[in-house]
Amino acid sequence: MKQKGTLIVLSGFSGVGKNTVISQVLAQRPEIHFSVSFTTRAPRTGEVNGKDYNFVTREEFQARIRRGEFLEYAEYNGNYYGTSMKVIRDKLEQGVDVLLEIEVQGAAAVMDKMPEAVSVFLVPPSFEELSRRLYARGTDDEETIQKRLAIARQEAKEVKNYMYIVVNDTVDHAVQEFFSILTAESCRAERRIHFVEGV
Amino acid sequence: MKQKGTLIVLSGFSGVGKNTVISQVLAQRPEIHFSVSFTTRAPRTGEVNGKDYNFVTREEFQARIRRGEFLEYAEYNGNYYGTSMKVIRDKLEQGVDVLLEIEVQGAAAVMDKMPEAVSVFLVPPSFEELSRRLYARGTDDEETIQKRLAIARQEAKEVKNYMYIVVNDTVDHAVQEFFSILTAESCRAERRIHFVEGV
Repeated sequence: MKQKGTLIVLSGFSGVGKNTVISQVLAQRPEIHFSVSFTTRAPRTGEVNGKDYNFVTREEFQARIRRGEFLEYAEYNGNYYGTSMKVIRDKLEQGVDVLLEIEVQGAAAVMDKMPEAVSVFLVPPSFEELSRRLYARGTDDEETIQKRLAIARQEAKEVKNYMYIVVNDTVDHAVQEFFSILTAESCRAERRIHFVEGV
Repeated sequence: MKQKGTLIVLSGFSGVGKNTVISQVLAQRPEIHFSVSFTTRAPRTGEVNGKDYNFVTREEFQARIRRGEFLEYAEYNGNYYGTSMKVIRDKLEQGVDVLLEIEVQGAAAVMDKMPEAVSVFLVPPSFEELSRRLYARGTDDEETIQKRLAIARQEAKEVKNYMYIVVNDTVDHAVQEFFSILTAESCRAERRIHFVEGV
């Protein structure tokens, strides 16, 4: 009996270090499938189409909406973000764990449609630290940073809907907590009850 | 703000290797408080009063029942087993994690009274392996072993009420799964929501 894969939904405030944590997770567990989202926002320096995001035009994105291709999609900060349903379902059926990085609106839609998903919210050790990291990143102007912090304050209200909160004080620690959650979830009685059914 | 400790309820079939796993857990995390149960059964060779169990007479046990001292107690295989409430409550309030090894009837009573408890059931890789371990232990005669296996078949029906199942294929692996569960539980959003309340 092949055990189904686990869908892990990861969100976090802009600037908290999601990409760094995800890179480490995938480096240590290359068997995890990272679900690449579709977006209409412009690529940042260094971002690769098909790896970081599938970058598409507004017209193409809206055509995909009409074809019902998305598990969820949302408009955020003036850009569309969406998640393809078919790839995720196929991977889970094959027993592959799927990691989905997604903002809070989209995450709520996924949790609603797939209640068995494991949801994790990545937080900084403090709000001051979040602000410091956004400035340190050096990719955004003052106005964008203030906008991101205002969005973070809004998003903070939704964190209670996640199952787990991982604190990104150091990347190693955050990655270790993330893997502990994955291991613990694989130990859930409902996933392992076949171990005692034979008795 | 001091975070409350976690109460971990551990059960498992007789002979699955609970004591070995618990010894390793406590050796690696001496800050965990192991709750010592009261029992009227005779000590096995090597068992120490006050460490493995508090060994008491039936009369003393029944007096403690009347004084309302037990979080739970149960009669099992002709002997009483019970858990003192006060020590556990005090430790949890101090922020100390408490590990409680307990059979399924007692565990059900504890989960009922303390629904925030984390419950873990330790299983062997297979029922054949359980039987093999009971014979290898060499402490019981044939009749006792058959009785233990019959009890295991009964207990198997209750495993679905536990949150987690840990497979004791190797002690190291079981201990690692156990610690992952502890870490994941400490990451639960309801325990960490103070990280975002400041935002």
